[in-house]
Amino acid sequence: MTTLLDAPLDLAATCRAMARRARAASSRLAIAGTLAKDRWLHRAADTLLARQTDVLSANARDVESAHESGLGAASIDRLRLTPDRLRSAASGLREVASLPDPIGQVRESRTRPNGLQVSRVGVPLGVILFIYESRPNVTLDAAALCVKSGNAVILRGGKEAIHSNLLLHRLLAESLEAEGLPADGVQLVGLTDRAAVGHLLRMDDLIDLVIPRGGEDLIRRVAAEATMPVLKHYKGICHVYVEKSADLARAEAIIVNAKCQRPGVCNAAECLLVDAAVAEAFLPRASAALAAKGVELRGCPVTCRLVPTAKQATESDYDTEYLDLILSVKVVAGMEEAIAHIDRHSSRHTEVVLSNDLALVRRFVARVDSAAVIVNASTRFHDGGELGLGAEIGISTDKFHARGPCGLLELTSYKYVVYGEGQVRE
Amino acid sequence: MTTLLDAPLDLAATCRAMARRARAASSRLAIAGTLAKDRWLHRAADTLLARQTDVLSANARDVESAHESGLGAASIDRLRLTPDRLRSAASGLREVASLPDPIGQVRESRTRPNGLQVSRVGVPLGVILFIYESRPNVTLDAAALCVKSGNAVILRGGKEAIHSNLLLHRLLAESLEAEGLPADGVQLVGLTDRAAVGHLLRMDDLIDLVIPRGGEDLIRRVAAEATMPVLKHYKGICHVYVEKSADLARAEAIIVNAKCQRPGVCNAAECLLVDAAVAEAFLPRASAALAAKGVELRGCPVTCRLVPTAKQATESDYDTEYLDLILSVKVVAGMEEAIAHIDRHSSRHTEVVLSNDLALVRRFVARVDSAAVIVNASTRFHDGGELGLGAEIGISTDKFHARGPCGLLELTSYKYVVYGEGQVRE
Repeated sequence: MTTLLDAPLDLAATCRAMARRARAASSRLAIAGTLAKDRWLHRAADTLLARQTDVLSANARDVESAHESGLGAASIDRLRLTPDRLRSAASGLREVASLPDPIGQVRESRTRPNGLQVSRVGVPLGVILFIYESRPNVTLDAAALCVKSGNAVILRGGKEAIHSNLLLHRLLAESLEAEGLPADGVQLVGLTDRAAVGHLLRMDDLIDLVIPRGGEDLIRRVAAEATMPVLKHYKGICHVYVEKSADLARAEAIIVNAKCQRPGVCNAAECLLVDAAVAEAFLPRASAALAAKGVELRGCPVTCRLVPTAKQATESDYDTEYLDLILSVKVVAGMEEAIAHIDRHSSRHTEVVLSNDLALVRRFVARVDSAAVIVNASTRFHDGGELGLGAEIGISTDKFHARGPCGLLELTSYKYVVYGEGQVRE
Repeated sequence: MTTLLDAPLDLAATCRAMARRARAASSRLAIAGTLAKDRWLHRAADTLLARQTDVLSANARDVESAHESGLGAASIDRLRLTPDRLRSAASGLREVASLPDPIGQVRESRTRPNGLQVSRVGVPLGVILFIYESRPNVTLDAAALCVKSGNAVILRGGKEAIHSNLLLHRLLAESLEAEGLPADGVQLVGLTDRAAVGHLLRMDDLIDLVIPRGGEDLIRRVAAEATMPVLKHYKGICHVYVEKSADLARAEAIIVNAKCQRPGVCNAAECLLVDAAVAEAFLPRASAALAAKGVELRGCPVTCRLVPTAKQATESDYDTEYLDLILSVKVVAGMEEAIAHIDRHSSRHTEVVLSNDLALVRRFVARVDSAAVIVNASTRFHDGGELGLGAEIGISTDKFHARGPCGLLELTSYKYVVYGEGQVRE
């Protein structure tokens, strides 16, 4: 149960030893049976509830420090654990246990004319470094997904959550041992020294993938320094485009949901594009509905004319992820202008078209190259659970390896397994 | 039809302009229809045969220069085009036309309880930089696979093949234009200045993937310098393990095929592991069969005792990709020692087990983590065509994105396309 909380003499060597232990654990986890992994998840869930008092008191220390250091109310809320949140975290672990094991899964198979039986079989990636910010329940989610997919994980949570994370990590590692799995399969970088991450990001010989989750600065730093592949999205500048044939009542409900249901997340809408032909019919009613939820609009000149309460948008508004009750608005001549605007300003996360014109919808879907393109529904559905992946460790806006929500399958690779009976090549 | 053959004033700016043109072309190719792409492939094949005299005379210039600069016979053979090789290259283009288009392909779909229809749809990666050595027919294969998968490609072939490649590139680009596709979808770095590659490898804002194919030094340089993802394998140190229950007549045929059928390629066997229990029965007959093909054996002490003509292997022999008629041999106590040897020395490309013991075969397949694990057949089947992918642009020994042979599918990504009818998130 090694952590780095006791300041080591040689940080680089300590990090390297940690990565080596993760590598050794990953070899054992790669061939661990589904039953053992699922039992571990249930045991961890049971332990979490049994040790609730300890977990809440460790968390209380973090919350207290956060108050003292003047952390904002939203951040403190994210940091806080409650009996309800622990119950929900325990259910999350059990849900991962209920998902199919991606390891050993035959993903494709064929028999060749010469009789060779060829299949692609799921294998783990190996060792994953997961870097995240304050929410301690993410510690549980990430460990669950990594281990169920046969990987070892090194967790690096935010320093505000260090007491919560140390205890959660101990429960996870003890549960691994109790099920005959390697405790080093889940390790925590307990030292708050930022240099530890720098060392780990250079160990591409031992760490196969890094997943940063948090603010754009954190992610850019990780992407710049990492020598191994990175699974990431920087931000979500998501658009909702109301094409002139759209059902305007639905469009109103969708933009309110996309903006307001949870404004601080990456799949919330940040920009509304409206066809000029329906701007007069749509913008006043939509802005009233949005204003009722406290949303501030920043619009183009046409928007400001139709909605007197809207502020004038600057060009930089269209490149801003507000993560707040603010929405930029632009009236466009038609789909070509909408697509051009998206091409220029989108972060390639989620784009929505609202339309009943089949030909135009097909054009939008073919032309817009974002991780998720959604027709006639809210941006908020771009989420691993909502799209049916079960659970996610993050969302990727890259195209390499995985795009969109990353669940168990996206934490794996495959190998070719070929069965013959003496075949040689002519 | 821009190439870099005329030495530019500012190489970095010229490379950047080339990458920008590729990016623009990739947007058009991403939405190009299958019919246009396939017509291009057939037109390029027709043109190649119609212009055979020109192609052969451009190639003759390269071969002549190669003789003058003292290139080895094997390299000159790889460089040389003949009417036969051109016919086969033209057929290769037509074969790519016959493969299913991976773009727009629905790879998975589900309907969620709330009625959302979710699918994963194939999209191109964007712009691919392909760096390779002397064989000019690779120019045609690579362009065919990249464009059919909706990508733009920047080709950087070996300087020995520059005249052949300039003409082949011209035919490909002219054929693109003739089919209404962007000529910049296939560009060639015609300048032999090595610095051009260095500039391109830093343009991760415009180039999505680099694929280096050639010697280990070239690949290591590209992997070290590239700022974008790299699809690669360094080398193929492939093992054939003869477990004691193996059919020894088959084993003899397989090791001869794996070593001798084409010794200079990455999926040729470099090391033979033999269970001690059958070493006496197998090694003398296998060594006689291998000796008849001119293979030199470098063995462990037991091997040398059983095969007097074998040389003593040094430890470094087991880490060497001979690419020649040389084979290292080691007698092992059983499967655990064989797997430990593979873990230590393999390049994770291709491993073969020859055995009739089901439990042991299952253990080998689960435990050995190489891109291809083959049971009772030759290493030489680890190849895109042989495994049923149709054609390949290379083989990956990485686990991220693609592993093993990379065909059309591996040159693509996907996006989530979601259809709703007004759904909002609760």
